[in-house]
Amino acid sequence: MREKINNIIFGHDTKGGRLFDIILLWVILISVILVIFESIPSLHLRFFTTFYYIEWAVTILFSIEYILRIWSTKTPLRYIFSFWGFIDLLSILPTYMELINFGFHYLLAIRIFRLLRVFRILRLIKFNREAQKLLLALRGSGHKIGVFLMAVISIMVLLGTLMYVIEGGENGFTSIPQSIYWAIVTVTTVGFGDIVPQTVLGKFLSSIAMILGYAIIAVPTGIITVELAKNKSEDKVCEDCKNDNPDNANFCNQCGLKF
Amino acid sequence: MREKINNIIFGHDTKGGRLFDIILLWVILISVILVIFESIPSLHLRFFTTFYYIEWAVTILFSIEYILRIWSTKTPLRYIFSFWGFIDLLSILPTYMELINFGFHYLLAIRIFRLLRVFRILRLIKFNREAQKLLLALRGSGHKIGVFLMAVISIMVLLGTLMYVIEGGENGFTSIPQSIYWAIVTVTTVGFGDIVPQTVLGKFLSSIAMILGYAIIAVPTGIITVELAKNKSEDKVCEDCKNDNPDNANFCNQCGLKF
Amino acid sequence: MREKINNIIFGHDTKGGRLFDIILLWVILISVILVIFESIPSLHLRFFTTFYYIEWAVTILFSIEYILRIWSTKTPLRYIFSFWGFIDLLSILPTYMELINFGFHYLLAIRIFRLLRVFRILRLIKFNREAQKLLLALRGSGHKIGVFLMAVISIMVLLGTLMYVIEGGENGFTSIPQSIYWAIVTVTTVGFGDIVPQTVLGKFLSSIAMILGYAIIAVPTGIITVELAKNKSEDKVCEDCKNDNPDNANFCNQCGLKF
Amino acid sequence: MREKINNIIFGHDTKGGRLFDIILLWVILISVILVIFESIPSLHLRFFTTFYYIEWAVTILFSIEYILRIWSTKTPLRYIFSFWGFIDLLSILPTYMELINFGFHYLLAIRIFRLLRVFRILRLIKFNREAQKLLLALRGSGHKIGVFLMAVISIMVLLGTLMYVIEGGENGFTSIPQSIYWAIVTVTTVGFGDIVPQTVLGKFLSSIAMILGYAIIAVPTGIITVELAKNKSEDKVCEDCKNDNPDNANFCNQCGLKF
Repeated sequence: MREKINNIIFGHDTKGGRLFDIILLWVILISVILVIFESIPSLHLRFFTTFYYIEWAVTILFSIEYILRIWSTKTPLRYIFSFWGFIDLLSILPTYMELINFGFHYLLAIRIFRLLRVFRILRLIKFNREAQKLLLALRGSGHKIGVFLMAVISIMVLLGTLMYVIEGGENGFTSIPQSIYWAIVTVTTVGFGDIVPQTVLGKFLSSIAMILGYAIIAVPTGIITVELAKNKSEDKVCEDCKNDNPDNANFCNQCGLKF
Repeated sequence: MREKINNIIFGHDTKGGRLFDIILLWVILISVILVIFESIPSLHLRFFTTFYYIEWAVTILFSIEYILRIWSTKTPLRYIFSFWGFIDLLSILPTYMELINFGFHYLLAIRIFRLLRVFRILRLIKFNREAQKLLLALRGSGHKIGVFLMAVISIMVLLGTLMYVIEGGENGFTSIPQSIYWAIVTVTTVGFGDIVPQTVLGKFLSSIAMILGYAIIAVPTGIITVELAKNKSEDKVCEDCKNDNPDNANFCNQCGLKF
Repeated sequence: MREKINNIIFGHDTKGGRLFDIILLWVILISVILVIFESIPSLHLRFFTTFYYIEWAVTILFSIEYILRIWSTKTPLRYIFSFWGFIDLLSILPTYMELINFGFHYLLAIRIFRLLRVFRILRLIKFNREAQKLLLALRGSGHKIGVFLMAVISIMVLLGTLMYVIEGGENGFTSIPQSIYWAIVTVTTVGFGDIVPQTVLGKFLSSIAMILGYAIIAVPTGIITVELAKNKSEDKVCEDCKNDNPDNANFCNQCGLKF
Repeated sequence: MREKINNIIFGHDTKGGRLFDIILLWVILISVILVIFESIPSLHLRFFTTFYYIEWAVTILFSIEYILRIWSTKTPLRYIFSFWGFIDLLSILPTYMELINFGFHYLLAIRIFRLLRVFRILRLIKFNREAQKLLLALRGSGHKIGVFLMAVISIMVLLGTLMYVIEGGENGFTSIPQSIYWAIVTVTTVGFGDIVPQTVLGKFLSSIAMILGYAIIAVPTGIITVELAKNKSEDKVCEDCKNDNPDNANFCNQCGLKF
């Protein structure tokens, strides 16, 4: 019995497991859309009770699922303190918190806390195997992308400081953090236009920054393309030493075994 | 006779078929440009009758083509209810609708309906084989791109909710859907600037979102590049040594076997 | 004598030819910077005579070069009516036009005509072999990029028309061409923010357009990467049938010659 | 003794060298964050003395390091006049300059000079080997990227000049440099929106520029991807059959030769 439920809840290969996944997916989607729509004042007033009932239905469903997960797994503590266990708890806690409101009536805090339910959307990624495969394929390039981002952020810090010196507070560059924010908006080619350079030197430096931002996007793209292309090659695994060889190999390049 | 017309209308290889395609292409282009120019008030007043006559000429041409298509094909129902059959009908219906105006004088509805004629532009893609080949080549990466978009949209929903909490209605983040719209504008690096973060925390979170949006564009690019590179080589595998040869090979380049 | 000058002017391999190229490059750069700086009112007033003399010096140099080119080449007419011959003429004509001012004193027309001298910058590309090699490498992907652009422009036309219907003139979408202009600004992720959607439906459609524009940039990138990668592979050319084989080939895949 | 310190300061492989690197990294980070936070008026007033003491602590640490570097290296002059030697000096000089303030009380000049300490962030890149490997991998594509940038800047100059002629000063295109600045903002897809085309012809030309800028980003991406893919395989060529094997191969995968 316990193992059967474990198979349905944690597994994805049995018929029951797949059905469970699909139902859960729809419940997550509905609950996220609910949180989004609740924030629209006109809808909030009109469908207050509807929203209230759906919210409690979803929370009770998620609570049952959460309890079943703890009960059916062999390592309940590891599940509770795992990242996904935390997300699962975050999906139900806010609704219960509203009931308690013990002593302190920090309405705003509760209202904000309730919005955390939108993190339920992360559960969608958990159930998507393709997403996890993609993340795995990209893990190899993580270090290189990190180095690239470090270099880009260094450029943004330098650029922000220079623009703070050149433009100054009267043109909107009121402090270095503000100028760095502008540099990020510019180098990433977002370009809100809330702060723009006014001086000739500022415009010249911005031009260099924009061309730089436009061109260096090629670097992470190259890194990830090469990484994904590498994962693409379906290697010929040596039966003897389990080494990966390219698919056109006649001999294993580690132990010399003839294929 | 019927087969001959079928060859001209549906085929692209005979001399008549190619001529038919080129004429149709120009008629489509003219009719789309007409719809676009009609919407400019000054041109609409000045060339009202010219527009009227061209529109009817194009519609009659398209009607004849539509009837001939139904008459010449062996599977008329399958054509009528296909996607392209629907587009073909949509290309002629609006003009006729204007004639009828039975009872209800919903002028605005008709005016909007007439603009649907701009969907004729989709017919251009139908006649372009290269476009269909490109779509076919990309089909293999569709699932991965879908997963990527799902992840990006999840990030946008989370970011939008967080910004709604941080910035609030007085800074333009009036509801979660509005905040998600802002998140889409920011992460895709469009950056209209109609809504911009005002608080320090909001600017910090936006900075992270912008750098994220700037860097993760590399993921779909990598996926599609790998997909297109794969489709490039439709290999001829050697029966003898199982080596991959380019598809125009006469001999295996590893063992010299004649194909 | 004539051949010697031809070698210097048209060639890039002799010592004289390289020196000529470098001098010409600097003269072009100076003359373009001159045109740019002349447009700044304060500089125009202060350095009027300096600009005047430099301009005439550059024009006389270019004129001598133009005459020598015609004189030294064996096919003067082909040079004159070639694209680069036209650019070379455009580099000198505007300055002379100012002298003549025959009868009509269309000052504005002449002023605009003078700005055409900035097209001299195109001559920089002519002298850069690497640029021409890059263009050659990209020529193979031209057709595919064209198809991609046609599809993107079709989407922009459809999007523009739909937004014209949804938003209407009061929100800045005053005509379909104006709406298409907005669609181009949005799909290319430029995002000026001079026109922005105001209605809920308009924002929803914009969101889809932005995500689309953000994702489909991957397509031309993939096409060009594959094209450049293809040109990279240094093939093993068969001595017998001149066929290109991959560099790991043991036998020519066209005639079976053993390498 | 001298060699031991040299190993710790310049080396990265010994235990002491690694510890030194990590401590230095944190000191650099703290000092950069200090410069950034100092620029916020409210923080500047409140933590004036704290900032002052940390700044001097960091400067003394960097000074000791600088002196030890000069003393321990065998080629002190080469270090002092190298790029990194200059950056190291720039990291300490501004703080000392404040002490001296000899005669002239150019407070603004000193204040600006102090901000130069933010260039300490460049030292982060120096200590990151992966960043230097990435730069090395990209060096091969430097020439091609340069040609691409030259072509893009040429387009921006031409576009800027044309827009200056079309739009003119009353629409914000007050001079050619200003118009070129706008062209850079547009072609790089930043799109601040501080200057936007107003005329129909200007909008048409902008549309072409935006589509161009959107599509040609594919070129540097392609160049860098191909370059990075090439650098991936430092092959071991078989002496016998000249086949390319991966660099960790023990046997040739074509003929089985032992390396």
